Amino acid sequence: MIVIMKAKAEEEDVNRVIDTIQSLGLRTQLNLGAERMVVAVIGDISKIGEDNFFRIRAMKGVENTVFVSKPYKLVSKDFKKEQTIIDVEGVKIGGKKIVVFAGPCSVENREQIMEVAEKIKKSGASMIRGGAFKPRTSPKDFQGLGEEGLKLLYEAKEETGLPIVTEIMDARDVELLSEYADVLQVGTRNMQNYTLLKELGKCDKPVLLKRGMWATMAEFLGAAEYIMNGGNEKVILCERGIRTFSDYSRNTLDLSIIPAIKDESHLPIISDPSHGTGRRSLVLPMAKASVACGADGLLIETHPDPDRAISDADQTISLSAFSKLMEDLKQIAKAVGREI
Amino acid sequence: MIVIMKAKAEEEDVNRVIDTIQSLGLRTQLNLGAERMVVAVIGDISKIGEDNFFRIRAMKGVENTVFVSKPYKLVSKDFKKEQTIIDVEGVKIGGKKIVVFAGPCSVENREQIMEVAEKIKKSGASMIRGGAFKPRTSPKDFQGLGEEGLKLLYEAKEETGLPIVTEIMDARDVELLSEYADVLQVGTRNMQNYTLLKELGKCDKPVLLKRGMWATMAEFLGAAEYIMNGGNEKVILCERGIRTFSDYSRNTLDLSIIPAIKDESHLPIISDPSHGTGRRSLVLPMAKASVACGADGLLIETHPDPDRAISDADQTISLSAFSKLMEDLKQIAKAVGREI
Amino acid sequence: MIVIMKAKAEEEDVNRVIDTIQSLGLRTQLNLGAERMVVAVIGDISKIGEDNFFRIRAMKGVENTVFVSKPYKLVSKDFKKEQTIIDVEGVKIGGKKIVVFAGPCSVENREQIMEVAEKIKKSGASMIRGGAFKPRTSPKDFQGLGEEGLKLLYEAKEETGLPIVTEIMDARDVELLSEYADVLQVGTRNMQNYTLLKELGKCDKPVLLKRGMWATMAEFLGAAEYIMNGGNEKVILCERGIRTFSDYSRNTLDLSIIPAIKDESHLPIISDPSHGTGRRSLVLPMAKASVACGADGLLIETHPDPDRAISDADQTISLSAFSKLMEDLKQIAKAVGREI
Amino acid sequence: MIVIMKAKAEEEDVNRVIDTIQSLGLRTQLNLGAERMVVAVIGDISKIGEDNFFRIRAMKGVENTVFVSKPYKLVSKDFKKEQTIIDVEGVKIGGKKIVVFAGPCSVENREQIMEVAEKIKKSGASMIRGGAFKPRTSPKDFQGLGEEGLKLLYEAKEETGLPIVTEIMDARDVELLSEYADVLQVGTRNMQNYTLLKELGKCDKPVLLKRGMWATMAEFLGAAEYIMNGGNEKVILCERGIRTFSDYSRNTLDLSIIPAIKDESHLPIISDPSHGTGRRSLVLPMAKASVACGADGLLIETHPDPDRAISDADQTISLSAFSKLMEDLKQIAKAVGREI
Repeated sequence: MIVIMKAKAEEEDVNRVIDTIQSLGLRTQLNLGAERMVVAVIGDISKIGEDNFFRIRAMKGVENTVFVSKPYKLVSKDFKKEQTIIDVEGVKIGGKKIVVFAGPCSVENREQIMEVAEKIKKSGASMIRGGAFKPRTSPKDFQGLGEEGLKLLYEAKEETGLPIVTEIMDARDVELLSEYADVLQVGTRNMQNYTLLKELGKCDKPVLLKRGMWATMAEFLGAAEYIMNGGNEKVILCERGIRTFSDYSRNTLDLSIIPAIKDESHLPIISDPSHGTGRRSLVLPMAKASVACGADGLLIETHPDPDRAISDADQTISLSAFSKLMEDLKQIAKAVGREI
Repeated sequence: MIVIMKAKAEEEDVNRVIDTIQSLGLRTQLNLGAERMVVAVIGDISKIGEDNFFRIRAMKGVENTVFVSKPYKLVSKDFKKEQTIIDVEGVKIGGKKIVVFAGPCSVENREQIMEVAEKIKKSGASMIRGGAFKPRTSPKDFQGLGEEGLKLLYEAKEETGLPIVTEIMDARDVELLSEYADVLQVGTRNMQNYTLLKELGKCDKPVLLKRGMWATMAEFLGAAEYIMNGGNEKVILCERGIRTFSDYSRNTLDLSIIPAIKDESHLPIISDPSHGTGRRSLVLPMAKASVACGADGLLIETHPDPDRAISDADQTISLSAFSKLMEDLKQIAKAVGREI
Repeated sequence: MIVIMKAKAEEEDVNRVIDTIQSLGLRTQLNLGAERMVVAVIGDISKIGEDNFFRIRAMKGVENTVFVSKPYKLVSKDFKKEQTIIDVEGVKIGGKKIVVFAGPCSVENREQIMEVAEKIKKSGASMIRGGAFKPRTSPKDFQGLGEEGLKLLYEAKEETGLPIVTEIMDARDVELLSEYADVLQVGTRNMQNYTLLKELGKCDKPVLLKRGMWATMAEFLGAAEYIMNGGNEKVILCERGIRTFSDYSRNTLDLSIIPAIKDESHLPIISDPSHGTGRRSLVLPMAKASVACGADGLLIETHPDPDRAISDADQTISLSAFSKLMEDLKQIAKAVGREI
Repeated sequence: MIVIMKAKAEEEDVNRVIDTIQSLGLRTQLNLGAERMVVAVIGDISKIGEDNFFRIRAMKGVENTVFVSKPYKLVSKDFKKEQTIIDVEGVKIGGKKIVVFAGPCSVENREQIMEVAEKIKKSGASMIRGGAFKPRTSPKDFQGLGEEGLKLLYEAKEETGLPIVTEIMDARDVELLSEYADVLQVGTRNMQNYTLLKELGKCDKPVLLKRGMWATMAEFLGAAEYIMNGGNEKVILCERGIRTFSDYSRNTLDLSIIPAIKDESHLPIISDPSHGTGRRSLVLPMAKASVACGADGLLIETHPDPDRAISDADQTISLSAFSKLMEDLKQIAKAVGREI
């Protein structure tokens, strides 16, 4: 950490900063040459948490504080150079092959999930996703089928061999979900639910961690670090759109984070253009863009089509849209030296 | 809900939208006069959840969807006209008196919390706040004293009579925390942790709900609705800064939401200028501004002063800064017809 | 436009809204079926400007106002179905071929610009870009070579045949710049500089309009409409990153707007991954992603390499990096049925 | 400036950074003690512009660059300690008295502007504001009365003695506007229109500079510096809301910037709650909050009331609402040791 003092800071202000840092068991080095005094902190920076960082920033005579070291370590390429490849029942995430997780938003009934599973399998998907426990903005909304939904997913897995990704919302459900699912997904709203992250750090299931819609890259990697610190090294990152002023799409899909994370971390990162745009017409082009800039996988919602309730034809179109998407992606994957 | 069709939408597109809406048990009314077709949805709109809302928006021929009704009801002034006043051991939140919750970020030891409690009581604070279980971005950071911290807070309460506000992070802790605390605080990162909100809906302790740093006003009120739907009507809202591009402060304190919520909801709303700015020099002016625009209370961190480690004098200054703040606020409160 | 009234709106409130709309020469239609009153506005909506829109929103009893019609017309696909192709000295923008505009940030001297022009031409660029008049955050910064810079660009054009794109900042410079340049660029900070847009609407040079870093899609298209309204139909849109809380990149490149604008408008749209990310290592992957999701062109800064001052080797690397980028993009272009 | 190198940066990378900095005429100092190498830049930092700053950040082996010195000087308290007070025909901006600029969005006709001028004068406003040249998102919208509008404002000034604030959009209009107006206003969209700022730097009229809705505090102060660099020291800053995801208000009024600028700069700063919220019911509470946190003045739109077209009664209410606002503000001003 570097502490930049105000031009008008007094000696006493600088001394107070130095004393505070030393009281945390760290050393300091003064930089006298610059126009204003800069105090560099030396030693095990992890002793400075977020609170001390902002507390020192607030001290008299301090202009700004800057992290020189990263607020994470295990997720970093400095710590582990080789790309992490996570093996889920034979499906390798982070390797040459781009992995597609597809399926409905919620598991609704056996017919639905079976048909989806068979068709996406045929189109080339690697895993099936579907919600059994749903985060809903209203307690009156459909909360998912619960364990019944997990059982249906399991049946679909037995039929097709596709491993299962499903969302976990409650730290108390790790055991139950682990019986059925192969990957546990943490939703955007829970990215900094430390109670949940702590439990996931203790289990041995791979975790699909979605970026909080408010999270900087450092916070996103920090949440992954939290899980890894608990002992679970199998974390798959997922960009799913951030919250901005822009209103033509539901979220702003921040694709640049994919190559940025590739520079910074050894963890695999996938993209979710379905939630990232919230508009069906944008899913295909943004899926292509995701693969073009280096995503290790995609999360595609082929959930119960809105038009499905009325006409079978529409549903078929939707699954055939997924099939077309997989065809189109093959060309892009090849163009970047990968396969799908 | 209103569905605005594209200018080039075909009859078939409109019919598909109508069928979808009717399949949800709702009626429709067509607006033919406008340049483009508009489909108004009539009936119990709560049958349309967030997913259906965006699903219909994504349908062929649809330009946009707009909620006409609010995604909440119980929190609304349409539902209950009179301002809600929450009584916490005699402290009334939402009434004429502006309530100040003060205290350290974390409870550290008996001496600290006792001194703080006595001094803030003397300065006119109404409740003591202090963390026993802390949300930390790293599992290596100090996680709080846990139950030991709760006991110390309770001692401070016995000494001073100040009721206790403390943060809850784990749905499994409701019972434990309820033994000691008078108000349970939900942190910004947990605003949409539905597992936690559900448990809080079932308990009878007042809840201090902080705005998610990514949350719109509707989502903020929606989270309060979630708790109220469970049966707990004692929700205190708290603006604590949102995440924007602006970088001179830690967050952007969105004070306009205070009068906006006063227009919209009967729930009390307080302001947290400490987290909202993250800069000590901004706390006093923004505390004044909060009271001037109608806040029912303030949450002020008089947490372990950064300079405290080195000199007792500095700590005293900090508590005297709080004392001065209370003095200054009296004038502002009076100017808006309230007291503190 | 649709005006949504509050649930508690009184008849008098509704009548005041209706009278106001009628006084603007428009008709209204009431929607009585919904839970709350909705007033639809019928007629030539362009009579309602931005001010009236927000003024009506502020009226007593009004909950919200929503534009049903678009705040633009000429740029819209509803107005002109076929994709616009702009011909700049034989270079066609908006057609099958993806157009690459490359060159340095500023024109510095003859050697620099000549070398750049020759090398990018060889690598397959279609146009040369370079600043002669520079927008600088400080008046003390280098303001560009001015007309001397334009002359150097013109020499480079004569040598290589590459048409010229350069930035215009001052409405008084249209004539001067038009003597030398083939496309006039409007920078992000000037996207709503109406004085400038008005002059550009009157000239016959194609305009490269960069998205304001604060602009919604409707505002972006609205600025293009402003130019077209003046009579100049040759507008090329350019996504260059928006301002968000995310801090790992200089701006957040909002690529989803490319397919969204393709849905909405007939104008060509290109991407600027150089400014859009501000990090050299992200330029290549985001250039690929831009082409994958449908961009009609790219703006790539191969400006005076930072390392150039010290070693010629570094500069060569930079131009060879551009050459490699062009090679890589060929594969992506082919994968989406285009060429480069 | 400080350059933070990557942990894995090679000696050659560090040397390249040092050479680049030295080639700009600056010295460097290495900080060897920290976990990663830090290069501090010493000397006249203004030689590093925005481009070099980001160019160095993009160099191989560089993790991050941080400005230690400010990107401005003349506006800073380091440069001039005493608060600047700007005298406009006897009205002192920046002193003990809070200055209120009131008036309609656009000047429409003599009756309107005369009535407004008289009434706001009576209520205690210090200056009259009104648009003669209007920035409009569509060229078809009412563009203002032009010079005729200026003449009407001048008549109102002669009648009431209230000095005039009006917006300038075109650098060519400085002379014309200066004949009539006492303060020239730069709108949010033109905050970084350097052509305009340059002309204003050369004139001797006070400038009311509105914050760009995308601008950081440093950019805002940088724009003021641009004008001051030209020789015009009479700059009044104005917070008017920034663009965020929050959608209940038209913009997010970032009031914390008022005390933050008071810490940083000697220039006066006022608040515009009208544009800052875009909702009439929020104007009064946010005007109070602005004064409470230290604003030197307010800009209040008492423009042609929306309801005015229909009923004289409504208009009267609007001017009486302004009168009530002035009354209420007196109490707040007194509570913070000022007057209005």
